[in-house]
Amino acid sequence: MSDAVSPLATPFPALPAIAGVTPRIARAGYKDWGRCDLTYVALAEGTAAAGVFTKNVCCSSEVELGREQVKAGRGRALIVNAGNSNAFTGYRGREAVEAIMAQVAGHLGCAQSEVFVSSTGVIGVPLPGDKARAGVAAALTAEPCSWEDAARTIGTTDTFPKGAGASAIVDGRPIEIAAIIKGSGMIAPDMATMLGYIFTDAAVAPAFLQQCLSAANRRTFSCITVDSDTSTSDTVLAFATGQAGNAPLASFDDPGADAFAAALEDVCRQLSHLVVKDGEGAQKFIAVSVAGAVSDESARKVGLAIANSPLVKTAIAGEDANWGRIVMAVGKAGEPADRDRLSIGFGGTWAAREGQPLADYDETPVAAHLKGREVTIEVDLGLGEGRATVWTCDLTHGYISINADYRS
Amino acid sequence: MSDAVSPLATPFPALPAIAGVTPRIARAGYKDWGRCDLTYVALAEGTAAAGVFTKNVCCSSEVELGREQVKAGRGRALIVNAGNSNAFTGYRGREAVEAIMAQVAGHLGCAQSEVFVSSTGVIGVPLPGDKARAGVAAALTAEPCSWEDAARTIGTTDTFPKGAGASAIVDGRPIEIAAIIKGSGMIAPDMATMLGYIFTDAAVAPAFLQQCLSAANRRTFSCITVDSDTSTSDTVLAFATGQAGNAPLASFDDPGADAFAAALEDVCRQLSHLVVKDGEGAQKFIAVSVAGAVSDESARKVGLAIANSPLVKTAIAGEDANWGRIVMAVGKAGEPADRDRLSIGFGGTWAAREGQPLADYDETPVAAHLKGREVTIEVDLGLGEGRATVWTCDLTHGYISINADYRS
Repeated sequence: MSDAVSPLATPFPALPAIAGVTPRIARAGYKDWGRCDLTYVALAEGTAAAGVFTKNVCCSSEVELGREQVKAGRGRALIVNAGNSNAFTGYRGREAVEAIMAQVAGHLGCAQSEVFVSSTGVIGVPLPGDKARAGVAAALTAEPCSWEDAARTIGTTDTFPKGAGASAIVDGRPIEIAAIIKGSGMIAPDMATMLGYIFTDAAVAPAFLQQCLSAANRRTFSCITVDSDTSTSDTVLAFATGQAGNAPLASFDDPGADAFAAALEDVCRQLSHLVVKDGEGAQKFIAVSVAGAVSDESARKVGLAIANSPLVKTAIAGEDANWGRIVMAVGKAGEPADRDRLSIGFGGTWAAREGQPLADYDETPVAAHLKGREVTIEVDLGLGEGRATVWTCDLTHGYISINADYRS
Repeated sequence: MSDAVSPLATPFPALPAIAGVTPRIARAGYKDWGRCDLTYVALAEGTAAAGVFTKNVCCSSEVELGREQVKAGRGRALIVNAGNSNAFTGYRGREAVEAIMAQVAGHLGCAQSEVFVSSTGVIGVPLPGDKARAGVAAALTAEPCSWEDAARTIGTTDTFPKGAGASAIVDGRPIEIAAIIKGSGMIAPDMATMLGYIFTDAAVAPAFLQQCLSAANRRTFSCITVDSDTSTSDTVLAFATGQAGNAPLASFDDPGADAFAAALEDVCRQLSHLVVKDGEGAQKFIAVSVAGAVSDESARKVGLAIANSPLVKTAIAGEDANWGRIVMAVGKAGEPADRDRLSIGFGGTWAAREGQPLADYDETPVAAHLKGREVTIEVDLGLGEGRATVWTCDLTHGYISINADYRS
């Protein structure tokens, strides 16, 4: 299923080592496969932690625990299991996570609450304790690995490993950010999910790290969609080791805080785009830019209504400038809109303005634009100053093949 | 595209003539096709009218006018144009509708506001006035036709004509209901839409007819989904000629009012199921029954989240009892749910109870059930007494072929 690499795949970038962060991988054998499927990232003492999690009510124990852990804001280790999401497994699932946390905390001599765990894969099967225990033991003593190896190991149905990095000057010192992510559908065939991990050597107070991550999340991860389905395990965690030596950032008043927040958001945007580019069956990467809404949040909702519309997504798959379907999607979004002020374009060419098709509309440049791998849709609601961009992929036979021509 | 008849198609039923209602058809030639594409239904004086319409903000002029017309509650004629939805056409679209209303009102000697008009088909092209005028003129003097002919003529990408009927005893007199509908996706390739028309010889006050239709709509048309996309033209109209001779129904206190309301809802349910059975690419008809919700409305929302999930719909297409995807859909609905009280079944067999997979779960009967044309999904939230059933179809390669392998 993940044999064919997405046509939108990009090479894994050169990512810096992050002082105080050491990734390692091992094979727990959660599925009958030869690959590594357990990732362990050791974090130096004093590392700040922040996270954003799925809003799905039926979330996994990992997510429930993670929400509590980020309140304390400290992390010493991350464990990621691939091949079993441990979701919908009741108290046995929770016990499996707590056993991993205890094992790692015992090894590091840290508090159990400082060990973060994520799991992704098949649901309804409690994580097997013996495999987890042996896998963790192997990972704790393994040689350090590359970011690319770690990115491959957290993946499930992903067709390529995904990472992003950025740097900034904070308090006169260079700081680095390295990050990896996995995800291919909001839910992939066995309920694979989006899991992202961001590491920096900057010194950042936990509350401010959470503030920056939450803000970036609203404009990046919360603005992508593959199929409108929300996973039970979605998690993005950020860890800041503080080893760059800058004066710790605690608010936007601190020097370099804006640069750090911008670098973090840049990494989040890169990661979120990579997930869309590995969307199940994706052949085209689509950016939907909405302007003229009554607020930014209203613009985001209109954009998501367009990006989630099966009819819009199939039209783009068919390279069809079917702007009527975009009118429909705007109208169903439940946000303020006025049919007679609405304008719609593709790749910078207006097809309809203020509620009517353009008399001199020339589809030639639009048709050429739609043949490309990257497509833009522009919508102007003509009501206010609100704007947002959301990203998605097209809906193709590949999506149906991956999700229907498959028996669990 | 509509050459292949849906595997879920049913034969057109024998429908009664309705006293005071005369359907006729003609060819306006809205598209380059040989078929009739204009339907005219004459209604006797004193006919009560009621309607429900799309909530899409970018609705057509026909919908805007219809909303006003049903407030007066009287109808003398219905015109349905197929092949051009006249949506997103600004003031020219509105003028085209008003011209048809004036032409029919002049012929019948009635008020313009008593002539209802619907249009379905390509959008962004104002309804051509000359074709409409000639088509209406031909229809006004055509021979009466059968319900099946009328059902075919209002269709666009539908693969079979759709009708339903019911009868009841009201005030000691038999009353009849005959109804036709078109629709194949919420939006079909050229923004075809769901348009339904219900005719009865019962005497019903307009306000009570509206009350019954709105209530039935909440449990029928508002409980179906093909692809989560909401059309700009969806309309269901009900007309009551009063020629059955019963004492007019004005409230549920009147004798026979319950029987009439039940018959009307029965017809609405039949019609709504027919639309799903002609869903684009549909291979299976899926009923999602949700119980144990905090309210009926909450149950309906959870049901729609399941019925709209691309991952659930592709799983059913693949005959895969992937209840994990149903857990996911319940959790993303935004309604009260408790993972540890949730139970999920297929065709009457529980796969998971109270948050955990059943230890003795036997997939054999479930696998057999999923091979059939009609699939049921049962969900018990375990929270309260709210319940609802929603209906949808599976998501197949056929949907992609119809909507992507197509250039407008």
